[in-house]
Amino acid sequence: MTELRNTVVRIAGAPAGLPTPADFEVGEAPVVQPGPGEVLFRSIYMSIDPAMRRKMPSPTAAPGPLGGQARIGDLMVTGQTPPLDGWNGGHVGQVIASNHPAFKPGDFVKGGACWQVYHTMPGRLLVKLDPRQATLRAELGVMGPPAFVAYCGMETIARVKPGETFVVSAAGGAVGMVAGQMARLAGARVVGIASGEKCAYVVDELGFDACVDRNQEEIGAGLDRACPGGIDAYFDNVGGEIQRAAFDRLNDFGRLVVCGMVSEYNAPEADHGPPLRPVLRKRLKIQGFVVYDHYDIHPEFRRRMARWLAEGKIRYREHVVEGLGRAPAALIGVLQGRNQGKMIVKLGEDPTGAA
Amino acid sequence: MTELRNTVVRIAGAPAGLPTPADFEVGEAPVVQPGPGEVLFRSIYMSIDPAMRRKMPSPTAAPGPLGGQARIGDLMVTGQTPPLDGWNGGHVGQVIASNHPAFKPGDFVKGGACWQVYHTMPGRLLVKLDPRQATLRAELGVMGPPAFVAYCGMETIARVKPGETFVVSAAGGAVGMVAGQMARLAGARVVGIASGEKCAYVVDELGFDACVDRNQEEIGAGLDRACPGGIDAYFDNVGGEIQRAAFDRLNDFGRLVVCGMVSEYNAPEADHGPPLRPVLRKRLKIQGFVVYDHYDIHPEFRRRMARWLAEGKIRYREHVVEGLGRAPAALIGVLQGRNQGKMIVKLGEDPTGAA
Repeated sequence: MTELRNTVVRIAGAPAGLPTPADFEVGEAPVVQPGPGEVLFRSIYMSIDPAMRRKMPSPTAAPGPLGGQARIGDLMVTGQTPPLDGWNGGHVGQVIASNHPAFKPGDFVKGGACWQVYHTMPGRLLVKLDPRQATLRAELGVMGPPAFVAYCGMETIARVKPGETFVVSAAGGAVGMVAGQMARLAGARVVGIASGEKCAYVVDELGFDACVDRNQEEIGAGLDRACPGGIDAYFDNVGGEIQRAAFDRLNDFGRLVVCGMVSEYNAPEADHGPPLRPVLRKRLKIQGFVVYDHYDIHPEFRRRMARWLAEGKIRYREHVVEGLGRAPAALIGVLQGRNQGKMIVKLGEDPTGAA
Repeated sequence: MTELRNTVVRIAGAPAGLPTPADFEVGEAPVVQPGPGEVLFRSIYMSIDPAMRRKMPSPTAAPGPLGGQARIGDLMVTGQTPPLDGWNGGHVGQVIASNHPAFKPGDFVKGGACWQVYHTMPGRLLVKLDPRQATLRAELGVMGPPAFVAYCGMETIARVKPGETFVVSAAGGAVGMVAGQMARLAGARVVGIASGEKCAYVVDELGFDACVDRNQEEIGAGLDRACPGGIDAYFDNVGGEIQRAAFDRLNDFGRLVVCGMVSEYNAPEADHGPPLRPVLRKRLKIQGFVVYDHYDIHPEFRRRMARWLAEGKIRYREHVVEGLGRAPAALIGVLQGRNQGKMIVKLGEDPTGAA
């Protein structure tokens, strides 16, 4: 196996704002042979998520519990680690060598913590996949972390009821499209916020009732038009002024699900959020969540999502680029909202042959 | 009964900030004879609550669903109406005449919506009191609306667990002192925020573990000292910079109970609140509530509070002034935090003779 060449991406800069390609360096690293209990696997697909941005070092902020720990020179980090384990791994791939009894060469697995092709890690941190249940790519999308993020926010905070009006930002993204479809399945009026072509996509393909194009109209006016009865739950993936516009239109007992604030990841920590007097007056709830806290509902998520997929009730779209060298541009594109569906980097041949 | 003279307080100004005595006018009004189903009662004690401030007209803001409906010339409004009913009435008194089968002259009742001595209202909106269960004054305090406010916030949002650190502002007030004692009963470390003599009171008399004197030290430094392990739940009665200092110290899974924002009632609507990125990172919950939504737990509240009082587990203090003419100054004093315990205006003789 010494002939294997492991391509990696290292962090080359501590960007203050939007990363640039110069903040990443594609290189090589040795393939680490698996020790006791470990497994070596080759990645086939890698997930690209906006939250990866938070793993990068900051020119100013101290490292925090969920982000910023990485340093210049480190391998770029995938997923939402720690804790490092299969369900939030950033890769799906195939086992090459195993010193763990649960895995043998040829098995398909989900795991991996860094931007590289070959991964050596404890078998206990890997999840074995059944490609008959879902495609390998779907494991990174509608069966994977972003969809589970949506599921957690919808089930634990938004709790949408029939007839309510539900709004989700970054509606065409991997999280938003699942959140919106779950709200539709729950019987809500569903309004997305997106830009350009994604607006048509979520309405025409995903069954949203309306979508505000943030490039075409002022958000507040758009929400007033699309939500004449106000907003009962807003699933926030972006923060900033879109968050504020939705907050200002929350009805009594409205919920603001603080899921992601992609518009702010590139900015210094915002100094303030929406005013709290309406929180009192309208009995609002603003709540953040992190999927690690909801392991307990992960089996339920996989079971329900597999059924929704089988029944055609949840649709999805993937945006696949080829080669690890394109990963930096893919991440930058996701941070700019330029992806069309779940962003995935294909790192090697998919032996399942799934379309 | 035509000889009865009904003293009333009318609103005489639309204050932009803290009301002044000139914003109120003491006068007289006819005593209204009870119609079918109605009851006439004489108030003995009237409650003074900071939330009354919100009922006053504003020079700028439009009337809202929970405040500001009153106009210049109207009688000043008590309590948290609408909906108007006994449990959140601002008075306790004694029935003089009744056209309602549930009430007879001499009965003690809770109800009343305005600052006046004689009240004529539908019997269905009155609650009959048993003065053997609690004193008439206690019905406005630890058995009344402010304590029920505390109970709702503690039971539905704060949900304090043993070993947690709980902070409450306006700790010596009618809401804060109950919230803090409930947290103590739940096994939490309890830290108050108050000023001056109230700090000693909540520690020495109510059993709080510590109290930050906002007149003696910077709030952030005080909280750091009193809460070395951070804050798990903050019960906010004041808003403003105290709210922000407590918010910044919330631990993971921290709760911010938005109960009252007395420091802001005198100010125009604040433009912003605490930043939401920590809400995401620390999985915080910020939630407002209004007691009307929690009628369902009111019987449970009365049952538990009566038991706590009987067992000496909840202590309280009352600040009684005499005469309706002193009510404006009493309200202004409460808005400035100058009361020592539940503020009550005594309007007439208490025939129960309770101390």
